[in-house]
Amino acid sequence: MLNERNPIPVLEAIKRVTTYYKKGETEYTAITNAHNRVLAEDLIADHDVPLFDRSPYDGYALRSEDTAEVMEKTPKILEVVGHIGAGSVYHKKIENSQAVRIMTGAPIPDGADAIIMLEDTTAFEEDGKSFVSIKKALQHHQNISFQGEDVTKGTALVKKGTVINPGIIALLATFGYAQVPVSKKPVIGVIATGSELVEVDQPLEPGKIRNSNAYMMIGQLQRAGAIPKYYGSLPDNLAESLKKISKVMQEVDFLITTGGVSVGDFDLLPEIYQELGADVLFNKVAMRPGSVTTVATINDTLLYGLSGNPSACYVGFELFTRPIIDYFLAKETIGMQQEQATLAVDFLKTNPFDRFIRGRYEIKNGLLVTEPAGKDKSNMVHSLAKANCFIQLPGGTEGYKKGDQVTIHLLGE
Amino acid sequence: MLNERNPIPVLEAIKRVTTYYKKGETEYTAITNAHNRVLAEDLIADHDVPLFDRSPYDGYALRSEDTAEVMEKTPKILEVVGHIGAGSVYHKKIENSQAVRIMTGAPIPDGADAIIMLEDTTAFEEDGKSFVSIKKALQHHQNISFQGEDVTKGTALVKKGTVINPGIIALLATFGYAQVPVSKKPVIGVIATGSELVEVDQPLEPGKIRNSNAYMMIGQLQRAGAIPKYYGSLPDNLAESLKKISKVMQEVDFLITTGGVSVGDFDLLPEIYQELGADVLFNKVAMRPGSVTTVATINDTLLYGLSGNPSACYVGFELFTRPIIDYFLAKETIGMQQEQATLAVDFLKTNPFDRFIRGRYEIKNGLLVTEPAGKDKSNMVHSLAKANCFIQLPGGTEGYKKGDQVTIHLLGE
Repeated sequence: MLNERNPIPVLEAIKRVTTYYKKGETEYTAITNAHNRVLAEDLIADHDVPLFDRSPYDGYALRSEDTAEVMEKTPKILEVVGHIGAGSVYHKKIENSQAVRIMTGAPIPDGADAIIMLEDTTAFEEDGKSFVSIKKALQHHQNISFQGEDVTKGTALVKKGTVINPGIIALLATFGYAQVPVSKKPVIGVIATGSELVEVDQPLEPGKIRNSNAYMMIGQLQRAGAIPKYYGSLPDNLAESLKKISKVMQEVDFLITTGGVSVGDFDLLPEIYQELGADVLFNKVAMRPGSVTTVATINDTLLYGLSGNPSACYVGFELFTRPIIDYFLAKETIGMQQEQATLAVDFLKTNPFDRFIRGRYEIKNGLLVTEPAGKDKSNMVHSLAKANCFIQLPGGTEGYKKGDQVTIHLLGE
Repeated sequence: MLNERNPIPVLEAIKRVTTYYKKGETEYTAITNAHNRVLAEDLIADHDVPLFDRSPYDGYALRSEDTAEVMEKTPKILEVVGHIGAGSVYHKKIENSQAVRIMTGAPIPDGADAIIMLEDTTAFEEDGKSFVSIKKALQHHQNISFQGEDVTKGTALVKKGTVINPGIIALLATFGYAQVPVSKKPVIGVIATGSELVEVDQPLEPGKIRNSNAYMMIGQLQRAGAIPKYYGSLPDNLAESLKKISKVMQEVDFLITTGGVSVGDFDLLPEIYQELGADVLFNKVAMRPGSVTTVATINDTLLYGLSGNPSACYVGFELFTRPIIDYFLAKETIGMQQEQATLAVDFLKTNPFDRFIRGRYEIKNGLLVTEPAGKDKSNMVHSLAKANCFIQLPGGTEGYKKGDQVTIHLLGE
């Protein structure tokens, strides 16, 4: 039994866990499913965008020198010798006093060096020929979208490890990625422990509570970009529990159990770790909540023993499991985004250990402000619903006052 | 043909569109799929949490008055008369000088009014009886999680219209929601138009570009919480196009077309609207990009004619389609979150119309700062990849300088 527990600092715990990071593989997904996945290869432009000089407007392509006389407020008449829609090409060259009707996105014809917008012209017919009357002088190169002005061939557009958003999808489509290389999601097992638990669809009995941690964890895993696999509860006895955990470890990239890591007489996890020959990285962290968070490895596979208290479980996951998921996904940034924020209320408790308060931040007049999301006790579930960050108050500090600067960890809501 | 176009202000356009909002229905989804869905009913606590006074620690339940003598540094010996794990109930009453071994989460036995933590005790056996030596005095009600201290029965915990996060999932599980009432997602059709388009898996030809808008739009729809349904491109001729659009309108809650709304000779949409007897709400908005955004209704179903230019298409969607999706989902907040931010660079162009620049904001020392995400031209796709907000520069303003305050619209990356 691992009854001797030496609390280690939070950063040391994170360091020990991240030593065991695994990097996942690359898989391909249809571009229509790529949103929010992690790009697994650098996206490099394999052609210029635009690929050719093109018209940004509906109008006429012409030679700007033909419009010089318009300066004296005399309209200039050009003969319309062609008509090109987007996707079409005008194969001849524009000569003196000629113009070609052109649509947005169509390639600029040879000889033309400017585009006049439709609204600055009047078209008419005479003797079976088409003409356009130009009311505005144009500069050389006016109204032309030049080849490569958006993107030059060879440009590294998006780095691997970036989460794919709709703008990146537009780039992927532009460069022909019908199938997109993305990081495979880790499959993470979830097992609940605790004889006080009844399942979510069961009625409550005296002394019992519904299993909320497992479902919360499933949501946290989905938010982090992992695939949760729920294995229900651990059996009541050691032998069966060992069998179940050994089997599950074969099917997942990581395993999370909730509850059963404390020093209670029914907390089986410490004994299970010992029986399985697990290497316990730590079984106590100098923080609140979540001090009993335990992380072990079996054959280099991480086994998270998170607290059975909802808030402690929640915090333990975000601090110690999320970075490992980020590594697996080969994300460019690992772990929660950290920012400075102004405390909107007093928090007068002293902080013997690092404290991670479930908090809520918002932006007020361009400034980040934060306050606790509700009552701050590790067994309380209420405050989690409103939290969008953790407020970190370092151990060894006295109470904090309204207006003080604090570090917050964004949950990515 | 709707060649006469009167630009209307952005806010007026949003107002016209939102007049036609539709509210979707409620459906039930398994709690394991509820993350990121919109809660369709208020979540009200149907019991107290905790449901009973319980122990927050592993330790012993006792009568605090029995520990009064410990004040004089004499350990107090109590007889251990029972042992309750979480989920179990001790059915007798604790009497004078008795204690009950208790695990985290277990109900406080009758007669006990405090819990001593395991680490403050020493257990021993004598004459076949169990005893515990208490080294610390306890106050009445010390270390008890009281019934209802987290949540009182009847409390409205989460409002309908809230996006479900892992903390809310924990509450849903606590109150027995195996199936969760959520807003049904709108099904939104996407049709691309433009003879210059080749599909994403096709090679480029002279004058052609790959269809990027449709895929970008699919990503934007997914981000907004809708179900995109892609119908490919519009046929080349009017009769077939009319047939296709009429058919698609029967299968979707809203329809989006990209391209074909300009004044070009191949822009079929205005004619299609006329032929279908659509009521055009507007076909020009006083803004950049996206001025040619058109919105029409057919039998109260909205039909969005977004620009074929990627940035214009992107902006048009977020400004005019996203609020309608939010209404359909009965979300508590409609449209993009707006904040004030400090401009990190000069933007010296004048703004004859409202300008929505694809921007990037970040937090620097607790302060929101923003700058354009790249080159600001409506036909450019590059800047969209990096954008996480729009910087709004009102029409009629001169250039902006570094340090100026601007309104930004958050894209919710």
